[in-house]
Amino acid sequence: MSAEPALMSLTSIAKAIAEKRFSSREVTQSCLNRIGQWQPRLNAFIAIEAEAALAAADEADTALAKGNVKGVLHGVPLAHKDMYYDAGKVVTCGSKIRRDFVATTTSTALQRIKDAGTVRLGSLQMAEFAYGPTGHNSHFGPVHNPWNVDHITGGSSSGSGSAVAARLTFAALGSDTGGSVRMPAHFCGVTGLKTTVGRVSRAGAMPLSQSLDTVGPLARSAEDCALLMGQMAGADPEDPTAVTVPVPDYMAATKGSLKGLRIGVPAAFYVDDLDSEVARVLDESIAVFKREGAEIVRVELPDQRQLSSASQLVLAVEAAAFHKRWLIERPQDYGPQVLMRLQNGLAIPAITYLEAMRWRGPALSAHNAAVAGVDAVIAPVSPVAAPTIAESDVGGGPGAEAVIQRLTRFTRPVNYLGLPSLALPSGFTRSGLPVGMQLIGRSFDEATLLQIGAAFQRATDFHDRVPKLA
Amino acid sequence: MSAEPALMSLTSIAKAIAEKRFSSREVTQSCLNRIGQWQPRLNAFIAIEAEAALAAADEADTALAKGNVKGVLHGVPLAHKDMYYDAGKVVTCGSKIRRDFVATTTSTALQRIKDAGTVRLGSLQMAEFAYGPTGHNSHFGPVHNPWNVDHITGGSSSGSGSAVAARLTFAALGSDTGGSVRMPAHFCGVTGLKTTVGRVSRAGAMPLSQSLDTVGPLARSAEDCALLMGQMAGADPEDPTAVTVPVPDYMAATKGSLKGLRIGVPAAFYVDDLDSEVARVLDESIAVFKREGAEIVRVELPDQRQLSSASQLVLAVEAAAFHKRWLIERPQDYGPQVLMRLQNGLAIPAITYLEAMRWRGPALSAHNAAVAGVDAVIAPVSPVAAPTIAESDVGGGPGAEAVIQRLTRFTRPVNYLGLPSLALPSGFTRSGLPVGMQLIGRSFDEATLLQIGAAFQRATDFHDRVPKLA
Repeated sequence: MSAEPALMSLTSIAKAIAEKRFSSREVTQSCLNRIGQWQPRLNAFIAIEAEAALAAADEADTALAKGNVKGVLHGVPLAHKDMYYDAGKVVTCGSKIRRDFVATTTSTALQRIKDAGTVRLGSLQMAEFAYGPTGHNSHFGPVHNPWNVDHITGGSSSGSGSAVAARLTFAALGSDTGGSVRMPAHFCGVTGLKTTVGRVSRAGAMPLSQSLDTVGPLARSAEDCALLMGQMAGADPEDPTAVTVPVPDYMAATKGSLKGLRIGVPAAFYVDDLDSEVARVLDESIAVFKREGAEIVRVELPDQRQLSSASQLVLAVEAAAFHKRWLIERPQDYGPQVLMRLQNGLAIPAITYLEAMRWRGPALSAHNAAVAGVDAVIAPVSPVAAPTIAESDVGGGPGAEAVIQRLTRFTRPVNYLGLPSLALPSGFTRSGLPVGMQLIGRSFDEATLLQIGAAFQRATDFHDRVPKLA
Repeated sequence: MSAEPALMSLTSIAKAIAEKRFSSREVTQSCLNRIGQWQPRLNAFIAIEAEAALAAADEADTALAKGNVKGVLHGVPLAHKDMYYDAGKVVTCGSKIRRDFVATTTSTALQRIKDAGTVRLGSLQMAEFAYGPTGHNSHFGPVHNPWNVDHITGGSSSGSGSAVAARLTFAALGSDTGGSVRMPAHFCGVTGLKTTVGRVSRAGAMPLSQSLDTVGPLARSAEDCALLMGQMAGADPEDPTAVTVPVPDYMAATKGSLKGLRIGVPAAFYVDDLDSEVARVLDESIAVFKREGAEIVRVELPDQRQLSSASQLVLAVEAAAFHKRWLIERPQDYGPQVLMRLQNGLAIPAITYLEAMRWRGPALSAHNAAVAGVDAVIAPVSPVAAPTIAESDVGGGPGAEAVIQRLTRFTRPVNYLGLPSLALPSGFTRSGLPVGMQLIGRSFDEATLLQIGAAFQRATDFHDRVPKLA
């Protein structure tokens, strides 16, 4: 048994607490110790609630001693992206506007995880209103990458990526509207699942774009993501867009092998203009899949640039509609980049939005036809590993869109199509920065992605490497 | 048995043909005779296909003689609003742009009626692209009201209202996006059912507004509407928005009485600023319901003006999106009023459209709460009986919107809420123009409306009166 329980996986620590090999207090203290060491370097937390966490851990230990097990995550300390409403708690959404907003309800996804017995460590940083791919935040400062604190974490789930990578929390809820789970997973070297639109309830989660928003976990492995998905997924009377498609046994899925599975490699777009190290890691990952028994198939996808444009347009309009009142009443309270992007959304004509929405069905049909022969498509998450905080600190100036475009070109098409995609660590650059890949799947078939991801992680150790405090 | 079969109801003529009391040829010829007399006065048809109709009638008679009955409308001649695609036939949509367009598919609603055995008489007039409430048409000329040919029919299902009223067809498909079934029913003195959004497939029907469009019948009675609804309603693989809510036995519903039913009378809006004759007819109808055993209940509805505005906005945007290409390429081929209204839709910001769409759910909940105690709400269809063609010929000038607003203020809220509404004849003005009412019902509960309408029609004879050729 490790001397430092915070270094264990979510699945292992939950088991260890249940079997009383560690108390919840020991585990929570272990996380708080690491948070104390790392937070000054990372700025991954918005609020650290040490005393409350330890008190909750003690309660969990007392309950466990009496045989009252709340659920499969009994006593496990976690923190989440600060956009999941938790009744009675401040939920800033990474913003000045909501800096003091106290939630009166609890988000369904969070409630279901809490119902499994977790202990709240505090709240995690994020891009302002989840609208930004780098990890910068004008109000709370940038979040730093634990592999090299001069580099970005990616966003918008910046704190989730950073804190999971540094082993400050065993896992964290993120959200993915244009890549916000997958980019921090890629840049920070953790596993993140972008779920199918409709798979996890969005009730009580801060909205950014009603058509694109998805709730998903960032964790240390595909297996840990599966554990959380089993808690969260499924219909919800509070969110009519959360559908009744049956929820499979995700943990069981992670036991499967790669034998007989077919993985598609795109013939273009996702393999174009890659940084050489990202290209190398992609090739090495394909080689691992082949070695482990998967069949590699070349796939010709429809034009991904159009999907990306449509995705951005839908996001811009829906975000602007949600923010309209604040954009009128308190524009000065937004950071410059978020303000610029939201204001751009105000000017888009309704017919343009409708065209982008109407194309969604036909585009998904075309995609499904193109990938009919494969179980998942492998692609990079971003053409580069994490850039520096300095070089990507572009604010709201004219260069901002170009930087954003470059980082998000490989993530947005999936959001437009509503598909699931699993991002997982698949290598490192020579300078020691993590590089991830994404596995794009079929609608509501997160299970196959988790199966492929877990099999990859049994064959590799990238997800198990831990950054060192410099 | 009447000497003129065209004067019988749809239900009766279908039975008479099935029982061989009339041949399909006799019935079809009777309709063609009336079309020959009336068409020069009414301009209700775009195309009259006399020879083909008689040939089809002969085929129906031959089949019947051999015992091959196609369905419950075997050999019944019908014509429909010229926006229902019928493979191989020209479908003009009342426009210059589609004047020569030959459909390659058949609309589901029409196909289901054809499958019951009907004979095609031709195609009926309509407002250009179904966008206009008066019955004017810049390309095909105005349609005339058979009760007084100087007056409008209402639109957009102008030909359907006029031809059913004059007994040129036993019934006709119409469509209702802002009142286009109910207004011609009201102005022409026929029965028209605006269906719940999702109740009847829209596949192969010309689209105007994806969120608001509904397919519905205009006929001589609630019973006749029920007969057609039984053929048309229900899910359709060609139209995912046509839902799987079970289809009740509409004909059985029409046998019910008014005993124990509660009819709501709005406390405001629908009773404000009515023409005195429309107000009188409304009072008289309420008295009939009371006499027949219904309970009359005052209902306080939410602000209907806001519903009307939201309805118009959604329609304007969605229509402009559908027409965008033609608005760019051939604006000169639209009539001035339709062009003006479509162009207005181009300029609406996406966030305004989204706001209007987002309010739909809450607005429906508020409505449902307000009418929870009643089975239907009674309201006028329009504050006036049919104005003259001359006074409502406002083209695309600045006065056009005011005229449109006045006519449609009582129909649009129902479209925004997606609810069903049955319009039926309920009186006449002193000058002999028909006056109708609408019964607004619960989502997917057209059956109760048809029950109430049929009971009203057993107690009154307004629907049985036939206009005289002047």
